[in-house]
Amino acid sequence: MWILRINMTDRSYRLEELPEAYKHLAGRGLTSTIIHDEVPPTCHPLGPNNKLVFSPGFVTGTAAPTSAGAKSPLTGTIKESNAGSEWPQALASMRIRALVVEGQPQEKGRFWMALLSWNKANGKPVVAFEPADEYVGLPTQEAYNRLFARFGNRVSIAGIGVAGEYLYGNSGIVFQDIQRRATRYSGRGGLGAVMGSKGLKYIVINREGAPGVQLADEALFEEGRRKLTDALRTHNVTKPKGALNTYGTAVLINIMNEAGGLPTRNFSSGRFEGAPNISGEAIFEGNKQRLGKELYNHACSPGCIIQCSNTWHKPDGSEHVSCVEYESSWALGADCGIDNLDDVAELVRLCNEYGLDTIETGTTLAVAMEAGLAAFGDGKKAIELVHEMGKGTPLGRILGSGTETAARVLGVRRSPTVKGQSMPAYEPRAVKGIGITYATTTMGADHTAGYTIAPEILSVGGKADPLSPEGKAELSRAFQATTAFIDSTGHCLFIAFAVLDIPSGFQGMVDEVNGVLGTRFTTDDVAKLGMEILRKERAFNEAAGFTKAHDRLPEFMKYEPLPPHNTVFDVPDSALDAVYGQM
Amino acid sequence: MWILRINMTDRSYRLEELPEAYKHLAGRGLTSTIIHDEVPPTCHPLGPNNKLVFSPGFVTGTAAPTSAGAKSPLTGTIKESNAGSEWPQALASMRIRALVVEGQPQEKGRFWMALLSWNKANGKPVVAFEPADEYVGLPTQEAYNRLFARFGNRVSIAGIGVAGEYLYGNSGIVFQDIQRRATRYSGRGGLGAVMGSKGLKYIVINREGAPGVQLADEALFEEGRRKLTDALRTHNVTKPKGALNTYGTAVLINIMNEAGGLPTRNFSSGRFEGAPNISGEAIFEGNKQRLGKELYNHACSPGCIIQCSNTWHKPDGSEHVSCVEYESSWALGADCGIDNLDDVAELVRLCNEYGLDTIETGTTLAVAMEAGLAAFGDGKKAIELVHEMGKGTPLGRILGSGTETAARVLGVRRSPTVKGQSMPAYEPRAVKGIGITYATTTMGADHTAGYTIAPEILSVGGKADPLSPEGKAELSRAFQATTAFIDSTGHCLFIAFAVLDIPSGFQGMVDEVNGVLGTRFTTDDVAKLGMEILRKERAFNEAAGFTKAHDRLPEFMKYEPLPPHNTVFDVPDSALDAVYGQM
Repeated sequence: MWILRINMTDRSYRLEELPEAYKHLAGRGLTSTIIHDEVPPTCHPLGPNNKLVFSPGFVTGTAAPTSAGAKSPLTGTIKESNAGSEWPQALASMRIRALVVEGQPQEKGRFWMALLSWNKANGKPVVAFEPADEYVGLPTQEAYNRLFARFGNRVSIAGIGVAGEYLYGNSGIVFQDIQRRATRYSGRGGLGAVMGSKGLKYIVINREGAPGVQLADEALFEEGRRKLTDALRTHNVTKPKGALNTYGTAVLINIMNEAGGLPTRNFSSGRFEGAPNISGEAIFEGNKQRLGKELYNHACSPGCIIQCSNTWHKPDGSEHVSCVEYESSWALGADCGIDNLDDVAELVRLCNEYGLDTIETGTTLAVAMEAGLAAFGDGKKAIELVHEMGKGTPLGRILGSGTETAARVLGVRRSPTVKGQSMPAYEPRAVKGIGITYATTTMGADHTAGYTIAPEILSVGGKADPLSPEGKAELSRAFQATTAFIDSTGHCLFIAFAVLDIPSGFQGMVDEVNGVLGTRFTTDDVAKLGMEILRKERAFNEAAGFTKAHDRLPEFMKYEPLPPHNTVFDVPDSALDAVYGQM
Repeated sequence: MWILRINMTDRSYRLEELPEAYKHLAGRGLTSTIIHDEVPPTCHPLGPNNKLVFSPGFVTGTAAPTSAGAKSPLTGTIKESNAGSEWPQALASMRIRALVVEGQPQEKGRFWMALLSWNKANGKPVVAFEPADEYVGLPTQEAYNRLFARFGNRVSIAGIGVAGEYLYGNSGIVFQDIQRRATRYSGRGGLGAVMGSKGLKYIVINREGAPGVQLADEALFEEGRRKLTDALRTHNVTKPKGALNTYGTAVLINIMNEAGGLPTRNFSSGRFEGAPNISGEAIFEGNKQRLGKELYNHACSPGCIIQCSNTWHKPDGSEHVSCVEYESSWALGADCGIDNLDDVAELVRLCNEYGLDTIETGTTLAVAMEAGLAAFGDGKKAIELVHEMGKGTPLGRILGSGTETAARVLGVRRSPTVKGQSMPAYEPRAVKGIGITYATTTMGADHTAGYTIAPEILSVGGKADPLSPEGKAELSRAFQATTAFIDSTGHCLFIAFAVLDIPSGFQGMVDEVNGVLGTRFTTDDVAKLGMEILRKERAFNEAAGFTKAHDRLPEFMKYEPLPPHNTVFDVPDSALDAVYGQM
């Protein structure tokens, strides 16, 4: 197994044997460890001393997402962000456990691409560099189409859009989906800007001839895979024609609205009267009407069983965009007071085309609306504002800097952010556990870091009263630790639904990892291994200047009651401090 | 002695007896203590829970500046900023040791003024509130002229310009000078925005009938005052027709340029070829030419002996602006590559008219120039950019947010800031001690917090090699402690030149304070009392989330050598940590 280092100062590369100490690390566990070990915590995120690390998960190459990590320009913290695509599978097939992008070119405003392929002669990966200036400024899909035309349809591409070129705090790294749509994003934390700051526009992988992932115990791996697959095919949330396959993640819109926890109009209400119009059910029904048939969802990543990625279609039946996720429909819909699915779809499409994170974009638009730049609910004006971001005008730059910076520049006090990253689609005043996760995760406000929504709202993995702060510090800690492990396996977090409810599925996940590594991890090790990762991430953040004063929600949530429950975020600071105090 | 509290939520006020514990506190010592004691460290600086505190110094009412303090929206730290004006004298004459502005109105975009006068009937100060909406958007001088016309020429006014209305991170509180120019600023740290966030546009004081400052020991006070006055009249820097009185603070331009420590073109060189054209000597000579006679400087504050405040005149001899300080001439001149005094003067005038800090404005313009918004040296374009700030356009808002936020939004990595506040006119790579002060002061980059330039460049208070880091942690600590005391006396920091070199002057300063308070402080107590203040400020910042990771200079200064000495900032982190490690 290798670590591949690409140095953008002189456009060179180096292949290293994976050190013994990293042998049992992958995905988030490895990106966070390399950043912890090699990046000066107080470095400028866009300076020459930051590093961008990609790492496939343990089981990637069979089926799974990749992790990307760096010190984040949005939050200043360590950052891991993952996406489902075939790109990490291509990386894993070359037995590269981590790809580390280092250095910075002297030239400003120039961009290159790294071409990674397999040298059959010596049985090693090889990297070539080419100028990428001709793709600068293009919409991502057009650029990807040109790249596929140039390098063939079988290559896998990781890249950035204009948002990354502009060094926006809100900028993702985009990977293709199965149908070569440039739409699967490591969206959060501004990792696109880190890539842009290194003058790296694309990493194109041609896996032809690569040996594929090595399995230490193929039988054990297969047994694990079968157990996990069975669980996924059985659970109501993840089974074929189940909730996710039918309605996509946007099935949550009506559920969260009902719970009074769907943040609306810049987090001023937990209920949106237009919610049904932007829900997963509305997407399913709308497509049925426009296509004349029922449309079930598809996989974003080869081999996925859950298949929750959707498309939205225009009145004439042609495809408008893929994918309208729950988070996107909420951020660009409810949080902006917009209840028109065609407007929401167009906003998602523009985010994809410019290289923006849909969550951060929606919450920023909502802050802009609070500042008076548009009326809440004005989808057309919202579309114009996203075009400003794409054009890089002064206004676009303000919005592209992310919600917290935009709020500061526009003079808005109600910034729904933690550690510089905007909150996703769950209101912490209505769902206390997720608020604890937002406050205390190493990543800035992030639901995927410890998804307590499962027991608090969905009755998955137990049951907990969303409005009560009782026992939630422990709950969030347990979820954060388990998640850090899942983020290392290479599996999508959505396996958690089945894994939490079906013990054999949980065992299957661990068996798979043991099958790949030849280890003997037990299910009891999962939280322990996850906590190890969290400890490194906390250590990095602490050295970067983060303290418990940053493990807090924005002040206004403590004194501004949220309708319809009219509750504030009443989790005491001591409970927030207890999450990691007992690490 | 009183504390006067103004609550802007309901526009009420309350007069409290000065508590025993605060009896020996004034100026910065009292603003920092009240903020430490009353403001939640993690509160939003522009939210209802922040407080804006004004406090005259111990000796104010005889002669001196006032301190204003709050949690800063620019830095997130505790903040004290002072200005020379008769306003604090009026406050002190009513025996008000602190004026605390609290709360926040529900209405957005509305402004009021507080009218403070003396009620002879009951021998107490009285406050009335009036709408101030008619002054919103006006240039500060026009607004002040209208206020003087309305309330009479004898009132004293503290207020904000449009920058404070817009809640800019770069926004000061403006006081009138002796000739009723609206030009003396508590400029740093965005205190204008704190005042603006409270809907408070002006505090107008009519001191008629007020009893004046009470002296516990008039003879001792007079003796102290005589000693200090003698020292000031003797020292080369502060004596009549001495350096400051003749050339103003801009006398430092040529000195710092010669030392290779005048930050030029966004801190990319320590020497500016156009320095002589924007120097104090050039101001003196230019005025002589345009007026046909030598013009010496004037006092900004009644009773001042140093009299370093200048004017710059147009070719026809009419006054263009007051005052072109060293910091302003550097920030809006050398740091932007501008060497035309008329352009610099116009930029200063616009800062005064809009309510902007000249330092933060100049360093922000330089960052904008690095981003390509104007060429370095293009004074006319710089003037246009400041007008954008005054108009509150998207571009103006970016620039008005301060240097660090502007750099982030514009994608500039070389942001010469510490804790969100931009560095003033001394290059830390060429003058190591001042770099230690920038890094470690509680205020964000601030030369006045520990002016080691005195021994490092001016051979005042000792001599130290500017390029050497040796012994500089101790030097900076000693200066920071002494300064915290001087900032409490109500004296301008410029007494330090005479006080450091002439022991009887130092004794005189302490005698004055003892004369006012009836205390028996010795010269040995000065650093001790100062350190007490610093300790409270550090405690506030720590609770607000600041750690030693924030006591650092920007990363680029550690790896980018500065011409002409081609040195980097090589003070080890351990030395920075030692400054307060031994508190």
